[in-house]
Amino acid sequence: METMKATFMYGAGDVRVETIPAPSLIEATDAVIRTVRSCVCGSDLHPYHSMEVSEQGSPMGHEVMGVVEEVGAAVTSLRPGDLVISSFTYQDNTCEFCREGFHVSCLHGGFFGGQGIGLQAEFVRVPLADGTLVAVRAADGSAVDETGNGSEELLASLLSLSDVYLTGYHAATMGQVGPGQTVTVIGDGAVGLSAVLASRQLGADRIILMGRHASRTDLGREFGATDVVAERGEEGIELVRDLTGGHGSHVVLEAVGHRPAYEQAAGVVRAGGTISRVGVPQYREAPIGGSLFLNNITLTGGTAPVRRYLESATAQVVAGEINPGRVFDVAMPLTQAPAAYAAMDRREALKVMLVP
Amino acid sequence: METMKATFMYGAGDVRVETIPAPSLIEATDAVIRTVRSCVCGSDLHPYHSMEVSEQGSPMGHEVMGVVEEVGAAVTSLRPGDLVISSFTYQDNTCEFCREGFHVSCLHGGFFGGQGIGLQAEFVRVPLADGTLVAVRAADGSAVDETGNGSEELLASLLSLSDVYLTGYHAATMGQVGPGQTVTVIGDGAVGLSAVLASRQLGADRIILMGRHASRTDLGREFGATDVVAERGEEGIELVRDLTGGHGSHVVLEAVGHRPAYEQAAGVVRAGGTISRVGVPQYREAPIGGSLFLNNITLTGGTAPVRRYLESATAQVVAGEINPGRVFDVAMPLTQAPAAYAAMDRREALKVMLVP
Repeated sequence: METMKATFMYGAGDVRVETIPAPSLIEATDAVIRTVRSCVCGSDLHPYHSMEVSEQGSPMGHEVMGVVEEVGAAVTSLRPGDLVISSFTYQDNTCEFCREGFHVSCLHGGFFGGQGIGLQAEFVRVPLADGTLVAVRAADGSAVDETGNGSEELLASLLSLSDVYLTGYHAATMGQVGPGQTVTVIGDGAVGLSAVLASRQLGADRIILMGRHASRTDLGREFGATDVVAERGEEGIELVRDLTGGHGSHVVLEAVGHRPAYEQAAGVVRAGGTISRVGVPQYREAPIGGSLFLNNITLTGGTAPVRRYLESATAQVVAGEINPGRVFDVAMPLTQAPAAYAAMDRREALKVMLVP
Repeated sequence: METMKATFMYGAGDVRVETIPAPSLIEATDAVIRTVRSCVCGSDLHPYHSMEVSEQGSPMGHEVMGVVEEVGAAVTSLRPGDLVISSFTYQDNTCEFCREGFHVSCLHGGFFGGQGIGLQAEFVRVPLADGTLVAVRAADGSAVDETGNGSEELLASLLSLSDVYLTGYHAATMGQVGPGQTVTVIGDGAVGLSAVLASRQLGADRIILMGRHASRTDLGREFGATDVVAERGEEGIELVRDLTGGHGSHVVLEAVGHRPAYEQAAGVVRAGGTISRVGVPQYREAPIGGSLFLNNITLTGGTAPVRRYLESATAQVVAGEINPGRVFDVAMPLTQAPAAYAAMDRREALKVMLVP
């Protein structure tokens, strides 16, 4: 049996790349892909900080692009050799929740990484391949090859569609960002910067980025941020309110997940406005009475149904209209995944791409 | 100086009708109206349960219709003799928040009742009268008189627009209720029943009413509820999920305000769905992480900007298209306001109208 390298976490701070059997088809709806690029997510750092020691380890990674090696008999939309992007969940793309655009709640789907199939690996078995993978093609229908037709930049942007950019895009979509609006993005991590780019795509008039790492907020400005507020807490709230005539922001995109970020969002949102969250909440309860109710604040967002947006975003990337892959600032070999986690944890890297 | 009767609360359970000076114009934008009908709100029962003893008392009441007695020099839309309905807030109806439809956040407005002007009184000074009052006219522009042109039913329905019906309507509007949707309404009080009627107006396919008072849920069925679930807590949640193929309700309208009602809402909402709250929250914090985030549940609603809907709803009522005043099951003289509060507190009355 063929073997491969794959990444596991055995407890907080304990990431290992191990050699395990390569996967093969199980269900007729499966595909097996050979990884071209994978990466580490900000949300991978949550278990990196808090995971209890485990004997068997958790397979890691939920973002991948690859080349189709083999498809099951029931797979109709993909052929061996196709360059494909996966969403960070798998889903049938046909059930009632998928049809309503909430693929993360698919009746037959699930999540990659954690307890399931890890995508920081050389090969991946992708369940429900027709519903999960999108083949990358140029506008004329011709194939894009695994070198991105020679463009590392194109590969990075395609990979970003697996989660990070489309998570930012989901925040903006759920927040109903559009022309005439002021949007405040909380968090200068890769998702926050993606939310800036998405807000510009959706036509926001003004985009205020709250973040204090200059190298990141500089990229945020290139992505479309019109203002940067480095201050946090009450001071940051005051500054955003000053920038908005005292009244706050129509939409706030919360891309962190910690409770102070939520409280900051509640502080800068305008009456009648919307807080859209995509940072995985590291809190259970939060204040939702009082001024939120009084002022008709809507709280929305959640786990991004990437598949909803994946085809149109792939076309935009291939056409060169957007370049969301700029959030990748470091690339490492897959075998150095432990160093990749450590670099992101120390904030030496914004987002690390893993190359098999 | 002329005097009038007005209602005050001096502590939990202590409501008194007193004789005080009648109001007169102060600002050029004021009107003074003579009350035709007022009423007691479910939210008046919150201080009735918990208010600390006060020497000076709180003026009570925030729902009224009346006849214009006098208008300030700057008032342009109203004439003495007009039958008018007030929203439970006053506002200029011109500031940026009013223009965005969130009149309760008006830059120059405020709330009736509590610390302000009480509307359970014989006369009322209405600030910002052009922005606050709507004159009742028939479709041909002719006036409707203070007997409702002889219809007590019409008067009741017009009065319900001051708060209760349009609060239910706001819940449904913020929840984006529409055709193709299943709506669950939590609470069989007057606001919950109004939310049922509003959901039917907005075209919901199916309306599940959660409430356990048969006389109230019977009216709910007449207002458009297709199903009634009397059970609460986990049992009630199970039943609603059973009624919806296991998946829950697209929209949940929470018309209670206590935390168990919020938890029930979270239990019956469908993935990708919306909880819209109009019951004034009697809790500060609540769970918003976990499954709400995972399943992209939107939490919306808040204090109803009644003025946004007041003109079109008045036209509907006058045309006989809706009859939301059926939530009034008891009428009493204003001087019996203490008995009105007690009857609603003991649930002997759904909603009591006060007649000067």
